[in-house]
Amino acid sequence: MTPELQDLFAFLSFPSVSTDSNHKSDVRDCANWIVGKLSAAGMDTQLHETPGNPIVVARNAHKADRKTVLIYGHYDVQPVDPLNLWDSPPFAPEIRNGKIWARGSTDNKGQMLAHILGVEKTLAEKGELPVNIILLFEGEEEIGSPNLAPFLEKHKAELACDIIAISDTGMVAPNTGTLGYGLRGIACCEVKITGPARDLHSGIFGGAVANPATAVARLVSSLHLPDGTVAIEGFYDDVRPLEPWEREMWAKVPGVSDEDYLKVTGSPATFGEPGYNSAERVFARPTAEVNGIGGGYQGEGSKTVIPAEAFVKFSFRLVPDQDPKTILQQVKAHLEKHCPPGVKLEIEIGHDGKPYACDPHSDFGKAAQRALKRTFPGEPMLIREGGSIPIVQAFRDILGVDTLLLGLALADAQIHSPNENFPIENFEAGIRLNQALLEELAADAS
Amino acid sequence: MTPELQDLFAFLSFPSVSTDSNHKSDVRDCANWIVGKLSAAGMDTQLHETPGNPIVVARNAHKADRKTVLIYGHYDVQPVDPLNLWDSPPFAPEIRNGKIWARGSTDNKGQMLAHILGVEKTLAEKGELPVNIILLFEGEEEIGSPNLAPFLEKHKAELACDIIAISDTGMVAPNTGTLGYGLRGIACCEVKITGPARDLHSGIFGGAVANPATAVARLVSSLHLPDGTVAIEGFYDDVRPLEPWEREMWAKVPGVSDEDYLKVTGSPATFGEPGYNSAERVFARPTAEVNGIGGGYQGEGSKTVIPAEAFVKFSFRLVPDQDPKTILQQVKAHLEKHCPPGVKLEIEIGHDGKPYACDPHSDFGKAAQRALKRTFPGEPMLIREGGSIPIVQAFRDILGVDTLLLGLALADAQIHSPNENFPIENFEAGIRLNQALLEELAADAS
Repeated sequence: MTPELQDLFAFLSFPSVSTDSNHKSDVRDCANWIVGKLSAAGMDTQLHETPGNPIVVARNAHKADRKTVLIYGHYDVQPVDPLNLWDSPPFAPEIRNGKIWARGSTDNKGQMLAHILGVEKTLAEKGELPVNIILLFEGEEEIGSPNLAPFLEKHKAELACDIIAISDTGMVAPNTGTLGYGLRGIACCEVKITGPARDLHSGIFGGAVANPATAVARLVSSLHLPDGTVAIEGFYDDVRPLEPWEREMWAKVPGVSDEDYLKVTGSPATFGEPGYNSAERVFARPTAEVNGIGGGYQGEGSKTVIPAEAFVKFSFRLVPDQDPKTILQQVKAHLEKHCPPGVKLEIEIGHDGKPYACDPHSDFGKAAQRALKRTFPGEPMLIREGGSIPIVQAFRDILGVDTLLLGLALADAQIHSPNENFPIENFEAGIRLNQALLEELAADAS
Repeated sequence: MTPELQDLFAFLSFPSVSTDSNHKSDVRDCANWIVGKLSAAGMDTQLHETPGNPIVVARNAHKADRKTVLIYGHYDVQPVDPLNLWDSPPFAPEIRNGKIWARGSTDNKGQMLAHILGVEKTLAEKGELPVNIILLFEGEEEIGSPNLAPFLEKHKAELACDIIAISDTGMVAPNTGTLGYGLRGIACCEVKITGPARDLHSGIFGGAVANPATAVARLVSSLHLPDGTVAIEGFYDDVRPLEPWEREMWAKVPGVSDEDYLKVTGSPATFGEPGYNSAERVFARPTAEVNGIGGGYQGEGSKTVIPAEAFVKFSFRLVPDQDPKTILQQVKAHLEKHCPPGVKLEIEIGHDGKPYACDPHSDFGKAAQRALKRTFPGEPMLIREGGSIPIVQAFRDILGVDTLLLGLALADAQIHSPNENFPIENFEAGIRLNQALLEELAADAS
């Protein structure tokens, strides 16, 4: 086994599950291991206490005439249950079929260690890095990074940088260089519709009063036109249109055809906003989704009641340049306008996060593309992601810097599920990619 | 205490809870008590075994030149929990404020015993009844009368009669004679909408596939026009229009104004089919109600998934001359036509029961009105009920006979709830009403 794989096995053996307070000391042990690893590589390394799990920051000796690159990762992992579905113990890594099987192998320890080992290797080979580097690793990503933004605020000056790189997103296909340059934002709200004071007998009272479950359904129905277009007034006003190069690029991206979405979701058909294909709908178009709906009798068989209340939980995925607060106001106005008569409407505004996009053709974007091209065959794929990574927006808001998303996670990596895995070739390519990335980002500075 | 009240207290002391098999022998003891009571009154009485609880049938000596009247009641009662909410023990009857407080006092033992005592009193006073009588009492009404229809089929000949009377419905206001001449029918179905093979991440996949919760809401929404009219093709085709006398009558019925419905339901407003008031909507117009809806995340806060499936449980209350099987076919066709694209629709047809109406101005109806007029001040109120009583339809289907609904239950009787009660005046009026009823039904025969 290579020394790099030995390092990864050691890193993966910590059950650093941040959602479970029983693993508090395992999380800390893992943080200390990172500190040891980085110190041994000659980095100036500090373990910072937070109200939650520690944040580890490491840096080389910074010089004024070099670009400063911040690399972010997280050493905490998801829980492992159901444990019985794992083919090998989640914290006793194994190699089978050229992959490393363990919790955290892809998300995020494998990708994070590739960053560290890329730095270490360059230092070992050249005695120096081509850039000023800040490595920032947290232990609370899987619980929503509650202490990261306050940390960034507090340490803003020391964390000042020119560009940020993160490997915690997807690679569109094996051995395919992937640069993510956009993320969708999110806005959530919950609606409660109340009617009668209690569940009513649908015979004795049915017909005389409005049914909250019917009302909630009418509200949900009002959010879309039959063709799938969102019907909220003003919803699309600030949506940045797709650029022709994006549509051309995405048509070449493997794994995101309509057929691919059909296969991976198991849905009977693709369906969405007219005028766009599936990849465009996911990468670059906003949505209005019901995440949960409920009201009245939930058991087997029938119970003939008119429910006293019903609810629906909405989330809206947003794209540049939609503003979540504006969208939530539009949603609220829409719901109030379309609420059927005879019931009371309550709207609870939930969390939100801004959409994100940077220019993949900027100087840093081009540098990242060159690094990807040196590491993987073919042209790098430039994509946006349908999901939301709030920390990326926090980096831009607090540090004022863009983030390059250099994902190494494959679609079948089983992140957050049993049998998480990471191909050895992705791990090794990640190390090479990080070496190339630092060189190319430095080259851009010259 | 009067002998009649003593009888009622004895009857009420049996915990004849049919839903609880621990009370099996209490139910039988109660049936035996009825047999003793009726035998002592000189009736030819039989306890019939069924696969469930016994059915008691009693009769006088029938004569060919008299009308035959069948009286139905049930001696089983609802469970009593939550027991701690009762002000006095449910099976130790007490008199407070002129009311008898006990489980079953109104539903149905008090009303049923009023029938028996009316018969007994007439026999004691006159030595003979003016009609041939069949008393039919079951012990499984609260569990859906599973053995009644088979019993009727089996004993069709012995149960042949001209008219049926039941006191197991509502009296619109204290001391107000009430004749029910109609009931709504019912038709149930459940819809399941399936989409993706599992709950999907709403970021990674949102926009590319249809959301089953949205689809189910669009289906529900399609069932009504915004004004509350049911939008299913053909739904109203067989609805018998209200007759002018019905609207005039119901305008006089106490307790069923729009304001009354508002007060008793606690709804923020009345709402229903245009062109009808609340009483008309409940008594004589059909409905399409959601009894339960569900899909996706049901817990606190948000979980941003696209649910794999969603369901809705519908029930339709039907009025003469709608046919439940026809309606369910129309519903099915509507749902199939309006199911949004991108999802799969499954429809499970549930139970149904025909609507019922007889003519309150028939000879028997007029006789019942005269009996009510002799017992209560003012004109009797003629109403239909919004609920469904399947046994009434079973009587018509199997015995071919109409049923007069002579309800003595007040709105605050707390049937099926803690602190069930029955006013002594309703009990005593019930005895007089039954005496008068047999005389008037006989008079009609002459």
